[in-house]
Amino acid sequence: MSTTKDRLYLYDTTLRDGQQTQGVQFSTPEKHMIAEALDHLGVDYIEGGWPGANPTDSEFFAEPPKTRATFTAFGMTKRAGRSAENDEVLAGVLNAGTKAVCLVGKTHDFHVTTALGITLDQNIDNIAKSFAHVVKEGREALFDAEHFFDGYKANPDYALACLTAAYDNGARWIVLCDTNGGTLPGEVYQITLKVIESGIPGTHLGIHTHDDTGNAVANSLAAVNAGARQVQGTLNGLGERCGNANLTTLIPTFLLKEPYRSTLDTGVSEAALGDLVKVSRMLDDILNRVPLRSSPYVGASAFAHKAGLHASAILKDPTTYEHIPPEIVGNARIVPMSNQAGQSNLRSRLADMGLDVSTKADLGRILDRIKEREAEGYSYDTAQASFELEARRELGLMPAFFEVERYRATVERRKDAKGRVIHLSEVTVVVNIAGERHLSVSEGIMADGSDGGPVNALSKALVKDLGPYSDLISDMELVDFKVRITNGGTEARTRVIIDHEDTLGRRWSTVGVSSNIIDASFEALLDAVLWKLTRDGAQALGAE
Amino acid sequence: MSTTKDRLYLYDTTLRDGQQTQGVQFSTPEKHMIAEALDHLGVDYIEGGWPGANPTDSEFFAEPPKTRATFTAFGMTKRAGRSAENDEVLAGVLNAGTKAVCLVGKTHDFHVTTALGITLDQNIDNIAKSFAHVVKEGREALFDAEHFFDGYKANPDYALACLTAAYDNGARWIVLCDTNGGTLPGEVYQITLKVIESGIPGTHLGIHTHDDTGNAVANSLAAVNAGARQVQGTLNGLGERCGNANLTTLIPTFLLKEPYRSTLDTGVSEAALGDLVKVSRMLDDILNRVPLRSSPYVGASAFAHKAGLHASAILKDPTTYEHIPPEIVGNARIVPMSNQAGQSNLRSRLADMGLDVSTKADLGRILDRIKEREAEGYSYDTAQASFELEARRELGLMPAFFEVERYRATVERRKDAKGRVIHLSEVTVVVNIAGERHLSVSEGIMADGSDGGPVNALSKALVKDLGPYSDLISDMELVDFKVRITNGGTEARTRVIIDHEDTLGRRWSTVGVSSNIIDASFEALLDAVLWKLTRDGAQALGAE
Repeated sequence: MSTTKDRLYLYDTTLRDGQQTQGVQFSTPEKHMIAEALDHLGVDYIEGGWPGANPTDSEFFAEPPKTRATFTAFGMTKRAGRSAENDEVLAGVLNAGTKAVCLVGKTHDFHVTTALGITLDQNIDNIAKSFAHVVKEGREALFDAEHFFDGYKANPDYALACLTAAYDNGARWIVLCDTNGGTLPGEVYQITLKVIESGIPGTHLGIHTHDDTGNAVANSLAAVNAGARQVQGTLNGLGERCGNANLTTLIPTFLLKEPYRSTLDTGVSEAALGDLVKVSRMLDDILNRVPLRSSPYVGASAFAHKAGLHASAILKDPTTYEHIPPEIVGNARIVPMSNQAGQSNLRSRLADMGLDVSTKADLGRILDRIKEREAEGYSYDTAQASFELEARRELGLMPAFFEVERYRATVERRKDAKGRVIHLSEVTVVVNIAGERHLSVSEGIMADGSDGGPVNALSKALVKDLGPYSDLISDMELVDFKVRITNGGTEARTRVIIDHEDTLGRRWSTVGVSSNIIDASFEALLDAVLWKLTRDGAQALGAE
Repeated sequence: MSTTKDRLYLYDTTLRDGQQTQGVQFSTPEKHMIAEALDHLGVDYIEGGWPGANPTDSEFFAEPPKTRATFTAFGMTKRAGRSAENDEVLAGVLNAGTKAVCLVGKTHDFHVTTALGITLDQNIDNIAKSFAHVVKEGREALFDAEHFFDGYKANPDYALACLTAAYDNGARWIVLCDTNGGTLPGEVYQITLKVIESGIPGTHLGIHTHDDTGNAVANSLAAVNAGARQVQGTLNGLGERCGNANLTTLIPTFLLKEPYRSTLDTGVSEAALGDLVKVSRMLDDILNRVPLRSSPYVGASAFAHKAGLHASAILKDPTTYEHIPPEIVGNARIVPMSNQAGQSNLRSRLADMGLDVSTKADLGRILDRIKEREAEGYSYDTAQASFELEARRELGLMPAFFEVERYRATVERRKDAKGRVIHLSEVTVVVNIAGERHLSVSEGIMADGSDGGPVNALSKALVKDLGPYSDLISDMELVDFKVRITNGGTEARTRVIIDHEDTLGRRWSTVGVSSNIIDASFEALLDAVLWKLTRDGAQALGAE
């Protein structure tokens, strides 16, 4: 245990390299949200994009976020045939007025001659002059040494000369980039050592990796092991092709794992670490992405113990099958249902919902029922509310509140008198409560006047008139709606998972499965209502 | 370059540890498909599951796949207080009659006393007796040393003694398991060296890792670097919690990357490597999962070049931004549309579809149109056919084949005379072709007689009578249907992506976006028809 720790700097490029992810394009407000979250997390640098390269990046830099972290503009070294002062691309980057400027430049001889089509000396001159200029402008300068590892393997002397040209002209950080992502941890470690031997101290070296061989995290660790003290990465590992080094994985590793825990300091506090899952989910929300369940540390499955043997040991002592306590990163333990879960899982999950199931026979029956339903395409890993209702039904603890006799959904697209295309969705529902029939009809019209479609109309019609139950469910709000086709092609069955919230702040998920998407939605909506009535102890009036 | 290469053995546990993935449960036919694919790939061992642990595993072992690879049964070392001969769990595993048997056993003193609640000596005796028995039965024996790395850090002598008990009693392979996934590559490397120093040769050592710190692949490489010669993993990195080491990543790394390429031999041929993407996709199809675009080597984005600078360099020479040629693993290069893609991307993509767009103005207009649509929730990364139609519309090259005047979809759920719940979906479509109105109506009834829902009915009704076009589209088949909600909550917009195939073997994707899922589906279905008519040079008859 060293008493004085080295400082390890974290450099986030979610807003620049992260935006190179296929299908990702952040709006300016979204960039501000992300920058704020990164600042809250405690990274040292936030790279905002390339001012001048495209309108949205320029817009963001016109009103930069106010962050404790060093807000950084990205660009490239000056082109040959003009001075640094007269390169309008470089000028565009400097004009953003950020405290730090990160310039990418070539270090691989092949790229200099092939991609740029200039001489090796011209490239070195471009690097040297660019950094002299940036430093003269009073900015903290960083050099992203593009293709450095490939370049070093092809021509070590030239690759190192490029780094030296930036370092000798005042670059604060020399960042070794594995641009194509093909380098393996052993090579990164060895080559980083060579760079340090060449005279650039590790306290001025950064590492920038990509995940093309699944080693972006390991390559970052290898460089740090060799002495590098800045790590570049992105939230959730966003980035070009297979993505960049995942900071959501690296941050907990640096804070919790040896040798890093006792030898390195980052700007991330333990309190901020506790918000890691929240930050990761926020980014997925912005991207409208389903969070990756298997993500290290932050994934919904990261602490899910499916194997029966694991689950029973976990109940004795969580450390038996967990490498860290989930709550440290804001995650939670899951003991999911499944054919393999076994009764120890099931009992603990029923207990969580206040159902004390004593007899083995009851447990067995519920397990069989769940297996049956899962075979039909249902999934209860997330839809806990529907799972609870199934268990109650199997135990005969499910009250008969009402019966839906029938419903009909109509969706129309036609032209109106003025020849404009209009849509109309209408749903009628007939509910039988204690022998009394309640007819409801709703349109799928949304707040903005547009047609919300049949599911929207169905959801409204179902809760519109539930007689004596209406007050109990009046505060239900549909907050999320997920659809998955559980079989490709024509025989497809549709699984719908719907999330609701109420004013008590409760959020519950229900599932419906059918070859008919409307009917699958109906089933999930109905379960959502029944769950709330059950939880709130509504009186069962039945049907007739 | 060594002339004689070491043999590296690949051990697949997709069917056992892979099935521990949350939400994954393979049917017996699916297990046979997967085993066949693994055998085609050329892995050395296929672990089929735990015979006797659950009905589906037992069913699979009752009719095992005929594979060149060594089919292996998984189980655990005998319990204390009974002989190996009289342990019915162990008997269940041996009774499967497989050539190889892999038994998991404890090596971490804490687990022996806490989880098992027996003495350290009893555990060693259980290991020794179990392997003596398995070997006496004439099976190839493997020892999964559970929690070995944690065990070694806590009590190295005891952990090593457990390995020796298995090895001295004839275990062919001692597999070092990082069961909780918390060990980092540096530790794996050092500890594996220690094990070899202790007297177990690397040619008898295997590695089994989990991805809880994002290092499952790197930890596997670290053990191989230290001398281990068997690697355990799963297809697509399936597995408990964050998953196991991803063989789909490791296999190309061993075959294509130094030092492995020139020093190690695996059972995987270059021809089989070319089917890697196919095998990976097949597994996702079985799981009805959306393939992870960012997967190393096999992901759809693994060779997607979004940045404008990258894309233009790629056009000059692919090696500038690709660490391997995509086709080696059966993957393909993508130059996706996006705000950052720039015109070099766009032109090459239009050229791919036979649209030669010469003027910068045209390119600019198309780019603006695509940006506009993407802002509305459309996504053209996969829906190339809809992208092509948008470009044609913008260029005035889109023929007017017909107009859909209106459609109406009805979905009903009610009880029939016998009180059984029945569903009915019906769609009417009115199409105007050259002034002639074609009315079509279809029900959503599927091959099995059940109700396929409104999208199914809509798809049938739309193509039912397109007059003179009917022959041209008669071989269209809807093969996939994906739905995504692009905004959570009530203001949700629905994005539908539909894949079609025809008898020419063409597969094309179209996209529709609307707040109404039926209408979004309609839009995608319509584009699918229009794309085929366009590609097949149908004559435009227009509407009136």
